[in-house]
Amino acid sequence: MARRDVCVTDPIWKRYKELVRKEMIPYQWAVLNDSIDIAIERERNDASIPNEKSHAIANFKIAAGLEKGDHYGWVFQDSDVYKWLEAVSYSLSDTWDDELKTLADGVVELISKAQQPDGYIGTYFTIKCPERRYMRLAESHELYCMGHLLEALVAYKLATGSELAMDVAEKVAAHLCDTFGPEEGKYHFADGHEEIEIGLMKLYHITGTEKYRDLAEYFLKVRGDSPKEWSRLKSMDKGGNILGVSAEAMKYDQTHLPVEEQDTAEGHAVRLVYMCTAMADVAKASGNKEFEKACKKIWRNIVDKRMFITGGIGSTVLGESFTLDYDLPNDTMYCETCASIGLIFFAKQMLNLERNSEYADVMERALYNTALSGMALDGKHFFYVNPLEVVPEKGKLDPTKSHVKSVRPQWLGCACCPPNLARLITSVEDYIYSVFDDAVLVNLFIASDMSLEDKGKKISIRQKTDYPRSGKVLFEIENKEETDVTIGIRLPGWRDEVKGSIDGSAVKITEKCGYWYVQFPKGEHSILLDMEIKPKRWYANLNVSEDIHKVAVARGPQVYCVEGKDNGDGLHKLVLRKDSQLTDHFEEELLGGVSVVEGDGERLVWGGSDAASSSLYTCRPEYKKEAVKIRFIPYNTWGNRGENEMRVWITEE
Amino acid sequence: MARRDVCVTDPIWKRYKELVRKEMIPYQWAVLNDSIDIAIERERNDASIPNEKSHAIANFKIAAGLEKGDHYGWVFQDSDVYKWLEAVSYSLSDTWDDELKTLADGVVELISKAQQPDGYIGTYFTIKCPERRYMRLAESHELYCMGHLLEALVAYKLATGSELAMDVAEKVAAHLCDTFGPEEGKYHFADGHEEIEIGLMKLYHITGTEKYRDLAEYFLKVRGDSPKEWSRLKSMDKGGNILGVSAEAMKYDQTHLPVEEQDTAEGHAVRLVYMCTAMADVAKASGNKEFEKACKKIWRNIVDKRMFITGGIGSTVLGESFTLDYDLPNDTMYCETCASIGLIFFAKQMLNLERNSEYADVMERALYNTALSGMALDGKHFFYVNPLEVVPEKGKLDPTKSHVKSVRPQWLGCACCPPNLARLITSVEDYIYSVFDDAVLVNLFIASDMSLEDKGKKISIRQKTDYPRSGKVLFEIENKEETDVTIGIRLPGWRDEVKGSIDGSAVKITEKCGYWYVQFPKGEHSILLDMEIKPKRWYANLNVSEDIHKVAVARGPQVYCVEGKDNGDGLHKLVLRKDSQLTDHFEEELLGGVSVVEGDGERLVWGGSDAASSSLYTCRPEYKKEAVKIRFIPYNTWGNRGENEMRVWITEE
Repeated sequence: MARRDVCVTDPIWKRYKELVRKEMIPYQWAVLNDSIDIAIERERNDASIPNEKSHAIANFKIAAGLEKGDHYGWVFQDSDVYKWLEAVSYSLSDTWDDELKTLADGVVELISKAQQPDGYIGTYFTIKCPERRYMRLAESHELYCMGHLLEALVAYKLATGSELAMDVAEKVAAHLCDTFGPEEGKYHFADGHEEIEIGLMKLYHITGTEKYRDLAEYFLKVRGDSPKEWSRLKSMDKGGNILGVSAEAMKYDQTHLPVEEQDTAEGHAVRLVYMCTAMADVAKASGNKEFEKACKKIWRNIVDKRMFITGGIGSTVLGESFTLDYDLPNDTMYCETCASIGLIFFAKQMLNLERNSEYADVMERALYNTALSGMALDGKHFFYVNPLEVVPEKGKLDPTKSHVKSVRPQWLGCACCPPNLARLITSVEDYIYSVFDDAVLVNLFIASDMSLEDKGKKISIRQKTDYPRSGKVLFEIENKEETDVTIGIRLPGWRDEVKGSIDGSAVKITEKCGYWYVQFPKGEHSILLDMEIKPKRWYANLNVSEDIHKVAVARGPQVYCVEGKDNGDGLHKLVLRKDSQLTDHFEEELLGGVSVVEGDGERLVWGGSDAASSSLYTCRPEYKKEAVKIRFIPYNTWGNRGENEMRVWITEE
Repeated sequence: MARRDVCVTDPIWKRYKELVRKEMIPYQWAVLNDSIDIAIERERNDASIPNEKSHAIANFKIAAGLEKGDHYGWVFQDSDVYKWLEAVSYSLSDTWDDELKTLADGVVELISKAQQPDGYIGTYFTIKCPERRYMRLAESHELYCMGHLLEALVAYKLATGSELAMDVAEKVAAHLCDTFGPEEGKYHFADGHEEIEIGLMKLYHITGTEKYRDLAEYFLKVRGDSPKEWSRLKSMDKGGNILGVSAEAMKYDQTHLPVEEQDTAEGHAVRLVYMCTAMADVAKASGNKEFEKACKKIWRNIVDKRMFITGGIGSTVLGESFTLDYDLPNDTMYCETCASIGLIFFAKQMLNLERNSEYADVMERALYNTALSGMALDGKHFFYVNPLEVVPEKGKLDPTKSHVKSVRPQWLGCACCPPNLARLITSVEDYIYSVFDDAVLVNLFIASDMSLEDKGKKISIRQKTDYPRSGKVLFEIENKEETDVTIGIRLPGWRDEVKGSIDGSAVKITEKCGYWYVQFPKGEHSILLDMEIKPKRWYANLNVSEDIHKVAVARGPQVYCVEGKDNGDGLHKLVLRKDSQLTDHFEEELLGGVSVVEGDGERLVWGGSDAASSSLYTCRPEYKKEAVKIRFIPYNTWGNRGENEMRVWITEE
């Protein structure tokens, strides 16, 4: 389904899209062109911020021979331009803008000029050391960048019809097919950071060219053999061009085992979910059952043992990586915005393989919590790292927590998360539906108009809802063909009572793998899905030591948190009473309009003598409990009212 | 009081001393001479282990011109030799050993040959770059090493009467007095790692030479001005010899403020307590009230807000540093063995300034818990880092916890902690008493014989006790002079009921600042201190978020912990019942003989359906509580039975 077939009408999502169009895209353009000072955070141990300027467009001009100079920035600096172009493409599909189109055409032209005669594109190696092209692929991100390029060019083609975009893309893909593959004389290894596989699959989906799909499959299959191939090449290497790969690095970039044999989520979290996204896509497209099995095992491991309740993944800052089962520390974790975006990609592909609402549940969890938390309400400040527990002073004075910010910084030197969010928000309509030959699945509840002419169907679906403020969703459906159409509406995993009616008559809802399937003949119909959304208490598996004796509050798809602003700092002293009723009400003026949840609880305070209250350890603690009303806000809106403490999991007694 | 005036008779401490004499000293000698393979742990991020050999003795031979070659190892490699010599000195005082004495004489001679004509000793700069001598003192550890040298030479002089040791020491000290000081033409900055001040004060105490004391005081006073002086020198530097100092480094090594103005414990924990040790010593010796005030403020900050219940200090691995008040994470902290040893040094000096048993309480807490935890029961394996909560897999799979080991490694490449422990254990008798003109204070309860002829007194005190197994301590005292003698016996802060008798008659115990003062005329007397030692529950200040709703168990001076070996892994699922009675009993065969504590509690286990028990988050947790007997062992004996989980703070309900 082409994305322009769905048009989001929900005011909140439209506001996000406008922020991207009016704030992020122009801001990022200025950054890419070095016409803006990047607000550098000069904080120690913040390895994410070594560069003071982007230089990304300049790199392309130099590689194209239009300017003189040296490459500057990350080895993967090119991908910033590609992600910008991809977000621009989606934005143009929503809201046409001649000026932006002209700008983007210029970028595509610049990219085409930087493309080498054989199809290769990569400013770092073109400018600095063409002799090392692909020789350090475990770290060089060359295919990672070209993967983002293919995604951008496909999006741009769909948005504008640009032929030049397709020419460049096909030349890149042909070059890769000539260079990598099982045949003798080609390279037998994969990129250290998965992404090219996603790009090739997107190109395959719009061109139908099977060798692109086959190359994506090859890059996945050869992954576990890559380290051996590197060792072999290194042993023959005379010029010091080949770098060795450590066992640790192998787990980091998922080359420690053949991908078919991987059954736990290991290493760098973004890499892992990008790999799985491509693997699930290939599995569907080529019928690779081994890939499908591996995807399901890794999915289970993430969802059952390695995912924060916010849909965040990556339990440690070093390597931005997964660690071990049930290791989910709320205050030191990484939970990169990009990783949750990647989890959304993965979930979407899994839905194509298996119609099970759990995939959409996780997609929605990651989207409404960690992904949206990545951006401030002003659209100009961003989190890389999305903690579940923050004491601002600890992030400042304990260098092992320096990655944990309590307010969103401005644009960042390593600008991966903001443009990733931009492309997600501008394409959120792509995640609402999954279309199959025999059914259309509704995964997300977002007010929107959808029309579909595909696979013998001709239907339109209008969603009317203010979800997640309420759980009422009205579907106005028109089936324009003689053949019946089946709609499967997701019944969220978090739901309690759900009522349904069809064409105004109450019906009993039936469920199959989390979807309510309804069949319609030709004509206009309506379905009302009426889910009760009330605040609920959630508990973690006992094996999660960090969350034991604690509770998290959620309301529908949104996880909630407590902030110092509402509850005073020292949030660890709050206790939510087991027997208290959680209530909710909407506050129009708060944080752009949010449902606030409240519950009765206590705050522990010292009630003893001065000596007891000042001593660090005592046998006779004398504290009392002050009754308090605990106030919760949606997790994705935290950190928008200045620096303060925040907590998702709080003590329950 | 010269240390040989006290002879430890306690079998446990004698066993520790024998382990040092028979295991550590020969082992370390072999390491220093590269005749043993250092068991290298090749673990990532373990910056403490970059070297594969010591080369320390070879460095001296090269610096002395006896051998050819280059310097190898840390810039502070010399200090390993000095700490060995210091431990040897104390050991010789306990147990004479001709062979060891000959070996040590040879080392003193070698050091004397490496001493430069002007008195300087430092193999790194002598061999590699004499032109940079003192030019990078913020990082070069030259005075740190010479401080350890002075400590070792003073100890060796006291143990053996070596005149050569004194010659070398006085030449070093004279050289430093000529080189550093307020006068024009001298250097106006301090070493990045405090220690020279301690060495100079030890030399002052046995020689009475006031300029050594004055130079120690100068190094402390100039500390806060050092960064400015570095900047000044750097601005004039043409040869690139001077390194700049960052604001962060200033806090790290306590040069961010004049020492008199420092009122919180900041930066590298070992550095801070070494600084305070010297500052308190100088305050007493020179009457510097500003120093005394600063010491008291920093002490309060540590003891009231920045010390783990085990007497460990240093809340973060990065910088091995203090962080902020009440930030005491049990599983990521540093709690270096050396830092607790330094805290013992500091406490001992504070006792000289103020007769308050709190100093001895902290000294005992650090000694019986973190310091002794640093060494395995076999005397051959050592912890650098002393966690209060360990899950072995987390240390292996989360690189931010890679410093947290669950079993003690063998000798380490950066060998600071083991020899520091060796010198502490071989000189533990120095911490038992504090001698004043008008009283002798008993700080520690260790079976021992003490005889004192000093300051007009001539007394002997024999302590008979199996403390801390029991709290009964019998003091047999002989006052050999006509004048009365006052003994002040410490009444520990953790005590409950205490009974006392003098010469067999029960008496009422009076207390003054934590000591029970008793006055004796000439003759033989006895005091019985009979403290009830029973297991007790301890609670942390409410501001320590990590310990809220949790309890720690201690028995007398010993903090206890639970281990997986006794209680099964998954220790976070244990709950100690609030109303349960803690009991204790001695187990002869366990861990060299320990008092075991037990209490009734529960273990949380899933009691629901399989689906509920395997899901990561649920609204309907169905767990039940299994009654269990929770078994606690002394914290300092943990990790001696193979790899398993350990916890000090456990949930109480």
